[in-house]
Amino acid sequence: MGTPPPAFQLDEPNVAIVGVGLIGGSIAAALKARGFPGNVVGVGRNPARLQGARDAGLIDEIATTTPAESRFVVYCTPVDRIAAQVVGDAARSGPGTLMTDAGSVKGRIQNAVAEQLPAGVTFVGSHPLAGSEKAGWEHADANLYEGRMCILTPDETTPALELDRARRFWEFLGMRVVELSAEDHDRILAMTSHVPHAVAAALAGALAASESPFAATGFRDTTRIASGEPEIWVPILLANRDAVLRGLDRVRRRLERIHRAVEVDDAIELERLLAQGKLVREGLDG
Amino acid sequence: MGTPPPAFQLDEPNVAIVGVGLIGGSIAAALKARGFPGNVVGVGRNPARLQGARDAGLIDEIATTTPAESRFVVYCTPVDRIAAQVVGDAARSGPGTLMTDAGSVKGRIQNAVAEQLPAGVTFVGSHPLAGSEKAGWEHADANLYEGRMCILTPDETTPALELDRARRFWEFLGMRVVELSAEDHDRILAMTSHVPHAVAAALAGALAASESPFAATGFRDTTRIASGEPEIWVPILLANRDAVLRGLDRVRRRLERIHRAVEVDDAIELERLLAQGKLVREGLDG
Repeated sequence: MGTPPPAFQLDEPNVAIVGVGLIGGSIAAALKARGFPGNVVGVGRNPARLQGARDAGLIDEIATTTPAESRFVVYCTPVDRIAAQVVGDAARSGPGTLMTDAGSVKGRIQNAVAEQLPAGVTFVGSHPLAGSEKAGWEHADANLYEGRMCILTPDETTPALELDRARRFWEFLGMRVVELSAEDHDRILAMTSHVPHAVAAALAGALAASESPFAATGFRDTTRIASGEPEIWVPILLANRDAVLRGLDRVRRRLERIHRAVEVDDAIELERLLAQGKLVREGLDG
Repeated sequence: MGTPPPAFQLDEPNVAIVGVGLIGGSIAAALKARGFPGNVVGVGRNPARLQGARDAGLIDEIATTTPAESRFVVYCTPVDRIAAQVVGDAARSGPGTLMTDAGSVKGRIQNAVAEQLPAGVTFVGSHPLAGSEKAGWEHADANLYEGRMCILTPDETTPALELDRARRFWEFLGMRVVELSAEDHDRILAMTSHVPHAVAAALAGALAASESPFAATGFRDTTRIASGEPEIWVPILLANRDAVLRGLDRVRRRLERIHRAVEVDDAIELERLLAQGKLVREGLDG
């Protein structure tokens, strides 16, 4: 697939990507594919892994800590590490630095960062709705973000100009940007992403070894996301605890209604429950 | 995709397909694509629909009841109709007639058919593990069965020669044939297919309209099978009641463990549960 040219040039002197895995690596790949002229620094704990990403042409420089001269920093690390990294890096950074992230949970990060940043340094929460059950920059895809939605979660303290910088960054990667409160984001993503992950893991985990040779496409589709890294998903589920628990309860109540309808041979109620699921599913494109 | 030539010719004078939807239509398409020289009759309640399938070249003849001269009949109707159709047609059919089906539940059908067939007429349960959430012969695919598994469920009364005829039919369509008892089939398919359908329906049905614009690929994969027709799936879930209820309980227990781990912030237990799901999922190819 070719990469459509961006509608504008990204007006940042440099971009630092903290955590060059599938998500961070795909951001780097998209920046390059779209002709971003500035410097792209990959920041991580493992220089050998970063060296590979540089050799592959994804990033220009590698660093084990975020360079103080970085003016646009994107954190693509697991959600339980982002806030501490933001606060730590912010203390060493200069005015005009914009920090954002790609974390799947927003409220806990924003609460932890709030009032911890020096003057002139801004954090705007972002969540690009794109990903894969694969891990590592080797699976980086310059088109991962193309046409997908990115949710920004500014609050009343976010300067309009910095929000606009964050918006332009994701739009440069081809994304449609929408704004939500961190609370709405977390409530919605619990249902659309975090709870489905838990459900897929439960379904896959319940399959016995003797049954797996008979799993066909239906089972495979339904459990595909269970292949995601627990290292990434455990922090997400725990960081969005309350919304995840409420979402799990919603699914559990529906499963219990299906269980009861099967148990008492209630074809009408079962038909209603399956038809509701079909209606919702068909309302989603693709 | 081209259709690989079959390794042998199918030695049946004619094949009747009762229920020419996606499943029956794809059987017809595969017979034609592989050069079956005999007559293919489509049997159904709606002559206009069948006429369309004949005009599309899937079937040679149409009929509203199974012709008495049919010697190989495949029932591709919802699982709650198959047994009565088999028993009804058998009373009017001649010796040497082999009846099989494509139903997703085997025990209840075989129990209902047992000892109801005249001498010389055999029923062998089949379940080709291939399908789609789409419905209707318009979506028929001559390669739907290619390389997929078909489960036959003979019992101690099944004549070896008739079992072999059924096996050759599905092999002619490109399938790998395995044999299971009807009971094992139903227990296994509850976990690999019927329970996942219920789970996908519960997950999709729990999504609120305000949340659906944010559903990305993970949610879509996990709920894809919820688009299946309730008309097909209600009878499947009810016909496999006991195994479905046991399977739902297995998934519910796992979901409850995940719920509890999130609730008490037990990262180690949550990591264990997600890692088990990942291990099972990665053990499946594709």
